[in-house]
Parts: sequence; structure tokens; C-alpha cells
Amino acid sequence: MAALSTTLPLTRDSVLQAHAVIQPHVHRTPVVTNQTLSQLASTPRDLEGTRFAGRTPAKPVLRLWFKCENLQRIGAFKVRGAFYALHRLAEEPGWVEGGGREKGVVTHSSGNHAQALALAARESGIAAHIVMPQISIPAKIAGTKGYGANVIFSGSTSVEREAVTEKVIAETGARLVPPYDHPDIMLGQGTLGLELQEQVERSIAEGKKETKRKGLDAVIAPCGGGGMLSGVALSCEGTGIRVFGAEPSFQGADDAKRGYESGERVQAVSSLTVADGLRTPVGEHPWSVIYERRLVSGMFSVTDEEILRAMRLVYERMKMVVEPSACVPLAVALFDEDFRGLVEREAGEEGWDLGVVFSGGNVAVEALGELLGGETK
Amino acid sequence: MAALSTTLPLTRDSVLQAHAVIQPHVHRTPVVTNQTLSQLASTPRDLEGTRFAGRTPAKPVLRLWFKCENLQRIGAFKVRGAFYALHRLAEEPGWVEGGGREKGVVTHSSGNHAQALALAARESGIAAHIVMPQISIPAKIAGTKGYGANVIFSGSTSVEREAVTEKVIAETGARLVPPYDHPDIMLGQGTLGLELQEQVERSIAEGKKETKRKGLDAVIAPCGGGGMLSGVALSCEGTGIRVFGAEPSFQGADDAKRGYESGERVQAVSSLTVADGLRTPVGEHPWSVIYERRLVSGMFSVTDEEILRAMRLVYERMKMVVEPSACVPLAVALFDEDFRGLVEREAGEEGWDLGVVFSGGNVAVEALGELLGGETK
Repeated sequence: MAALSTTLPLTRDSVLQAHAVIQPHVHRTPVVTNQTLSQLASTPRDLEGTRFAGRTPAKPVLRLWFKCENLQRIGAFKVRGAFYALHRLAEEPGWVEGGGREKGVVTHSSGNHAQALALAARESGIAAHIVMPQISIPAKIAGTKGYGANVIFSGSTSVEREAVTEKVIAETGARLVPPYDHPDIMLGQGTLGLELQEQVERSIAEGKKETKRKGLDAVIAPCGGGGMLSGVALSCEGTGIRVFGAEPSFQGADDAKRGYESGERVQAVSSLTVADGLRTPVGEHPWSVIYERRLVSGMFSVTDEEILRAMRLVYERMKMVVEPSACVPLAVALFDEDFRGLVEREAGEEGWDLGVVFSGGNVAVEALGELLGGETK
Repeated sequence: MAALSTTLPLTRDSVLQAHAVIQPHVHRTPVVTNQTLSQLASTPRDLEGTRFAGRTPAKPVLRLWFKCENLQRIGAFKVRGAFYALHRLAEEPGWVEGGGREKGVVTHSSGNHAQALALAARESGIAAHIVMPQISIPAKIAGTKGYGANVIFSGSTSVEREAVTEKVIAETGARLVPPYDHPDIMLGQGTLGLELQEQVERSIAEGKKETKRKGLDAVIAPCGGGGMLSGVALSCEGTGIRVFGAEPSFQGADDAKRGYESGERVQAVSSLTVADGLRTPVGEHPWSVIYERRLVSGMFSVTDEEILRAMRLVYERMKMVVEPSACVPLAVALFDEDFRGLVEREAGEEGWDLGVVFSGGNVAVEALGELLGGETK
């Protein structure tokens, strides 16, 4: 990672600069709408038997716009941050001259960040070392090796992984690229927010959708480490578009929501939520944007059951492959009465044009039967 | 169905006319490309252990363009034919005046045609009676009822279904709308071929893809009853674009291929191929276009295992939900050495821009684990 002293300020303008850099390397993923899901989100729910039983159902009006980062390269938004981080690293004075490209970069991850960094490193002509737990599923190991990365195995605890990572750094001189807690990563991920804004404005201008608005009123994005959510928030700064974060509530994975409410960042999480990309606590740099600068207007959380119901609707109605983590914002829009009540209060009959981030589509196909098998209510 | 005497001639021009009629009612589904799959299709296979063991692997060059009818309304191309058939029926002299809208239309189907007809009838202000086997899965029954159709149950053999259908016709005066064996249905389905041609031409003109060609060289589409394949063939007549059909080989479901080779249409099929939309024999009207007029240049077939391997690649690499039947053409492009050898011989190093029809995405999500669970080679 480039030294913190070299990073650009955390502003919308810096996200625009990041976008210009990474645009040739990533897909401008499509933004799609779905009549059935927008209608469902705009229909009051029967709350009997739900965690909101006894309340009067909210009556929000929501027009949903899905940003399909599941169709991004490597199947997730993570390539945006990876490409931008490596670009900044290569610009750090002395890094290339000091043999940086050959020493390479290193990270520990068994998920989307590993493949993103491997791909970005290969296309940037930089060596990549990826520390993965020995027990990672073979397809993910093969995928990461397939992008030409040097895969090193470790135990599965974070202590074991970090120890191996330290060893790699000591032996190779590789630079650590963390998955989310760095300004360059945040600025890179935030570029999806810029595209989403432009794509919705253009669709409306071309008359493709009936709405009185000229663009988005709000965006809701998943929050794990918070790199993407904070980047999206930066991309919306000063535009009037409000940004919300969505988390799983299972076993306390809603750390950012809890921190947001208590005023203090929660620094550790141990959850096995089905939204496996969102099991990490929010990082320090993202937190400064999300909470301290209040660029995120609110955090919402949903149960694993609600996440899987949303996921099933995406497969059945949108015919799109998404991973559970990607379905958390939609689950909030469909099933969280706190969020739905807020939309009703603030937007009234005119409603909101809401951007919904589909963060990724990397799910083991073998697991789909089990994930999608339950009866939906 | 409108009387045969009233149908337009089976020409490309008639497909253009059908397109003008149905355009307001159906989605112009996207055409997408995928670098990984085009690369895979252009890489010689290791044939050891396959049904082509011992041959020299073909070296075709293929740039694939996927027409995503899985993103069509009701999740399959069938709405095209349904809307057009009902439009033509309403134009038949005397039909509306004779109370046709109230008497309605009828079909027997438990699949995509049932939902397509139900939706098209509702939006055309025509009553719809759908005969479904009692054992149909509840989601399909609910879906069809959800479009406002009158669902009538029958036994599951074709004799039982037809008997109930006859009874409905006798009691209501409803007009039968068959799933594929009628010129209006063929012309309606063929409209996807027109869009595919235009969309590829535009993408190339806008410089989105590197190819020396100006448009498609060929299209490959699934063949069950042949309504869609014959319609696509009509949409390509006179353009120089060659059309191929793709079938499952399991338990003789490759009836059109066998008929094409023997010169005589096979009139009965009894197969439980995983490609459940393609278990029917090719119809008489489609056959006249496919074989007698030779508007289809060749038929190819693949095993159920090859179909499921292709399906898995679509989920993993394209993040798209497709049904097994939709993956048959891609399976031919990837795994059928007869087809691949033909491309190598005819297209040489320059290769072909090949349109590949994804016909639908209606798969029971509960079954996905089993369908996609196998290890790919």
C-alpha cells in the first residue's frame, strides 16, 4: 500500500480522479431495474410473525436501481480498489526504482479481495503473494493461482494468517495491501457510486423509467469493513444523495450499526452470518467517513433469513447470480420496517429512487441448493 | 389461434412486421459478451475421456454474443410468440365480434408457454384457460394463476391433457394456442433474432468489441418443438447469417437432428433430458422452415453432462440464472467437436461472431444445488 502521507484527501473529487485511473481496467457494470421488486418494496408488508409484529406496516414508495457489481471482473467490486491501490503504489516516489514491482504486494484473504489483488497485480506487472488458509475451498485457491499469484498457505485464525503475512513481508519486501482499511481502497471502491449516479441520471433523461426525479435520492450499500460503503458515501458528498449502510444482524455482525448508535466503533466481530463477506468489523479509515463525518445517514441490519429471502427473489425474479452479502441492502429495502418507515416519512407519496448495490456474485454453486432451498413466505 | 388461412407468409419481412407489433409488450433483452467463455470456446479441448477421444481437437475461433431471453418477461422468449399470436387472433375477421375475448384462449402446458400465454392474454384483455397436470410444482401453478389465468387440472399424460383441453374448448368456445406448431408463434419468437442481429451490429459499430466483421456470421439456438429455431432462421433469411440448431441427445431428444439426417421428421419423443424445455418433437410448421427450406444449416446435439457443465460455467462466469435448456447451444459451441470442426473449416483464423440464444431462466431454485453440484472437468 502506498504510504498514508501520499494519499489524496477523502473527497468526491478524489473519487473522480480514482475513476479516471481505473476506468480502462474495470467494467462499467450495468444498472438494472426490476418492476416486480420495486413493486414489492412499495407494498406494505404483513408483519404478523415477523420481528416487527404489532407495528403498523410502513408504506414506502421505492423505485430500485441495482448496480450490478456481481458482473464486475472477478465477480465483485473489489477490483476497483485493488487497481487503484496498485496505481498509487507505483506512483509512490522511489517504490518502482527500489524494485517494488519485483518485491510485489501481499495480502491475506480467501475471498474476493484475494482474486482482485491477484488480477490487478498481474495486469499492473507487479508480483502478488496471497496468504490463504489451508482449508480454503479448492476453487478459490485455483482461481487465485489462475491469476498468476503466489499462494502461500496458513492456519485459519487471524493470528496465524498475520504471522505468515509478516514472514512473507520480511522475506520478500512485499508491500501489504489491506482489503478495506486504507484511503486508496476506499476511493477506488467509491467509483461504483459515481457510475451509479451517472447511469441512473442518463436512464431517466432518456425516458427509460417513469419518475419525477432527475436522479437518485439515496443509495444503500453493504457494510463489512466499510471500504466500499465509505467510498460510495464520498462519491455522493455534496450531491444531496443520502447514503445508508446495510449489515447482517446475526451474531453481532451489525458492528457498524451498533457503533453508529453508541458513538464508538466496535473493533471485533465474531459472526458466522451467511453474508460471509460482511463478517469483519468496520475499519478505522472507513469509520471516519461513515460516522465521524456523518457521510452515511444511517445503518440498518437484517436477519440471515431475510437475506436469503432477498437472495431467492433475485435468482427467481432477476435471473442474476449474487452472493448472500450482495443481498443485504435489498433485504433492508424489502424487510426492514425501520428503513421502510424512514422512507415513508421522508419521501412521502413521491417516494425515492434508491440505488441498491449488488456487491458481488461469487458463491459456491454447490451451496446454492441449500441457500435457496427454503420456502419463501 | 388465428386460422392458418390468415397468417402472413413465412419470410423475414413477416418477422419484421411481428416485431413492430410486439415491441411495446416485450423487453428488448440485452446481448452480452464474456471474455472467458469466448476464450474457452476458442481453445482446443483435451478430448481424452470424452465421446470424441482419438480425434484431433478442433481449433475454432469463436466470439460469442449471448441473447439473454432469460431476462425476458416471464423469464423466457415464449412471451414473444404469445403476444403476437393473440394480436393476430384479435385481428381475425369476426373473432372479437363473436365474443372471442370473453370465450378466451386455451393451452395445455406446465412450463414457460403457460405463463407466457397467461400474461399476454391478461394484457390483451382476453380470457385464458390453462390446462396443467395436477402434479405441476406449486410455484408454477401459483405463477400462472398470478397472471389471472383460469387454471384447470388434468392427469399428466398427453392423452389426459388433450382430453381436458378439448372439454374446455367445448364448454367455453376458447381458441387453442399451441406452444410452437403455428406460423404466428414462429414469427413471434423469430423477433429475438432480429434484435440479436441489430444489437451485435450496433455494438461492433460503436467499437465495443474487437472484430473485423460487421455483424454476426452465425446463430445457434435450442430446438424443442422448433418454433423459436425456425423463427430465428426466418429472421436471418437473406442476410448471409447461418443458423444452427442445438438439442440434447439424451434418450433420443435429438429428434430434429435425426430427422434432418434421415430426411424424415421424427414425430414422437420420450426423453427425460435435463433440458426439460426440449423434450418435445419438432413440429410440422417449424420443420418446413428448418429442413424443407433448409433455412437451418445443421443440427447438433450434446449430452446432459455437457449441458450441465455449460450451465455451471454460465452461473460461475457470467453470474446469470439460466435453465438447462438455455445452455444447450453454448454446450455445442464448447464441447461438440462436430460443430467446432465445422467452424474451424469454414471460418479459419478469422473465426466467427456467433450469436448464442439463452432461451430462458426458469429453473426451480431448490434444484440448483443438484444441477450444479457436480465437479466440472
